[in-house]
Amino acid sequence: MATERTRVDAGKLTDFAIKALQKVGVPEEDAQITAHILVATDLRGIDSHGVAHLASFYIKGIKEGRINVKPEMKIFSQAPSTATMDGDQGLGFVVGHRAMMEAVHRAEKTGAGFIAVLNSNHFGAAGCYAMMALEHDMIGITMTNARSTSMVAPESTKPAIDTNPLAVAVPAGKQPPFVLDMATSVVANGKLEIARREGKSIPIGWAVDKEGKPLTDPTKRVRGEGGVLPLGGTPKLGGYKGFGLGVLVEILCGVLSGSVASILKASTPGTRGNTDHFFGALRIDSFLPVENFKKSMDEMIEAFDALPKLPGVKKIYVAGGPEAEIEKDRKANGIPLHPSVVTSLQELAKELGIEYNL
Amino acid sequence: MATERTRVDAGKLTDFAIKALQKVGVPEEDAQITAHILVATDLRGIDSHGVAHLASFYIKGIKEGRINVKPEMKIFSQAPSTATMDGDQGLGFVVGHRAMMEAVHRAEKTGAGFIAVLNSNHFGAAGCYAMMALEHDMIGITMTNARSTSMVAPESTKPAIDTNPLAVAVPAGKQPPFVLDMATSVVANGKLEIARREGKSIPIGWAVDKEGKPLTDPTKRVRGEGGVLPLGGTPKLGGYKGFGLGVLVEILCGVLSGSVASILKASTPGTRGNTDHFFGALRIDSFLPVENFKKSMDEMIEAFDALPKLPGVKKIYVAGGPEAEIEKDRKANGIPLHPSVVTSLQELAKELGIEYNL
Repeated sequence: MATERTRVDAGKLTDFAIKALQKVGVPEEDAQITAHILVATDLRGIDSHGVAHLASFYIKGIKEGRINVKPEMKIFSQAPSTATMDGDQGLGFVVGHRAMMEAVHRAEKTGAGFIAVLNSNHFGAAGCYAMMALEHDMIGITMTNARSTSMVAPESTKPAIDTNPLAVAVPAGKQPPFVLDMATSVVANGKLEIARREGKSIPIGWAVDKEGKPLTDPTKRVRGEGGVLPLGGTPKLGGYKGFGLGVLVEILCGVLSGSVASILKASTPGTRGNTDHFFGALRIDSFLPVENFKKSMDEMIEAFDALPKLPGVKKIYVAGGPEAEIEKDRKANGIPLHPSVVTSLQELAKELGIEYNL
Repeated sequence: MATERTRVDAGKLTDFAIKALQKVGVPEEDAQITAHILVATDLRGIDSHGVAHLASFYIKGIKEGRINVKPEMKIFSQAPSTATMDGDQGLGFVVGHRAMMEAVHRAEKTGAGFIAVLNSNHFGAAGCYAMMALEHDMIGITMTNARSTSMVAPESTKPAIDTNPLAVAVPAGKQPPFVLDMATSVVANGKLEIARREGKSIPIGWAVDKEGKPLTDPTKRVRGEGGVLPLGGTPKLGGYKGFGLGVLVEILCGVLSGSVASILKASTPGTRGNTDHFFGALRIDSFLPVENFKKSMDEMIEAFDALPKLPGVKKIYVAGGPEAEIEKDRKANGIPLHPSVVTSLQELAKELGIEYNL
């Protein structure tokens, strides 16, 4: 199996994704939003959530009618800082972008903006939306549930929630922004998929089988029987904390939006297959002058990096630090695509009758 | 060593704490606030953060002049939803109560309220403040840093932040409220203290020594050399996520309030020994009708409990469920105090010249 990566230019990749999305009926502006988020994700090294899924997740979902390319999104607001939004089954990227901008606009006026969203779809990497707050000198917050479940509650053997990621982005000065983008499970489902594909075993502590016993052979995983463990792993090592964080994400997305928790979607008419999100923004200059804040962020990050390190370790990073370095490289030298991704994009080009020129 | 517990009435314990606090100069209303929070903590079974520390933490801090019993707290606000607050070195309970109520009042008006606080002191259990939002049908959020550090960053060997807890409280209907109150480390420092006192070893994965090697003998712990691990433990099991959460708490408390990150307190004039907090409130009816929200919370909690359980497990809890059961028992039958706590309160009574009648 070929594993050598092909470096492609981010701009060209964006143009390609825009054309592909327009071919299946996505309006130009929405195609641009979606393509930019997908490629921004690849630029930061989160290869599991970028163009790798353009064909298999999004274009397929549109073709099969599960994703609405002309959604009539509606915002319902009862107060200056908060609102709910109905995504009308639109592309998760388009719904997410609109909702995050709504949170930013509300924070411009009141200092804080929070939007709970129902009836959306998979929106890629949560961190991309949280990061939209950065250029506005705000702290951005993003969370999402999923249409199904894969994380096992402590002391149970069946999934209760999905890997329910949360992301928070915070601007700094000279230092790269703090960008925490994490599944509330020990690992995201994608890590088990990669191990399965590569024929590797997975560490004890990532997942359990239907009897609650550690699962180390990823090929033995059966969806719905056992699942990934919450961050922390076993109860003794704090697994109930990771589960608590995952349930918090479920509450802010599935419950506060007026949708239902994912565990109930299969049995609730009209909600099956829907994804719910939560977006927030805090305006830094409504707390203290932005320049003071950024200077203080830099000082903290630099103090962490000045700590003694384990042998062989060159740098103590805060969240988002490694991704900022990858982004710098990929912006200059292109995004290294896995051969399977190149193939999927070439096949997509053929299928849609567009040029493959990456 | 005697270990039998003495059950004491919550009301009498509250009155005792009020009298003790007044004796060292705390005004009546502030003494009531503090005593009620301490006893509410004991009622929920969080024995490490209740009256056990009344003498050794709070009364001692007041007597030694580190805690200001007549603080002039100031609120600075640039926007309707947000503010910073200077606690003027007041009792953490008094500062925390005031700041959380400020967040609630702002959420009443705009849907969301967020307050970052500097110059405070230890405020007990974070969950108590988050729970103040419940009776207002709001979601409450509370975080705190500390005056020193104890959590080791992944790939480092010295503490970068403290155990930086975060708490979120969410009302439900028939079910008890969701109350997540967690250190962002694998365990709170108190768990290592308890193991040390009882002569027990601690599990691999809780803490490391100054070489980054697992620490299992809690008597070998040296403050500042090694420390507790972030939630997740090793990098492979997601330790960078727990550290990311802890740094997020540090940012919202230490940086956003205009204070400094705890790692810099020792070297920053005027901040040594200060604690910073962050409080938030979201008004549920600014998103959806409260009754719909509570019904949906109940349905989610009940669906989790209906999942298959490991052998011997009777109930799948969400965060706050076990504490609600303990609270019910302790309200009816009294709070079981450890003999060492009884002794500390008896000695305190003698020292202050107040009656011990528990």
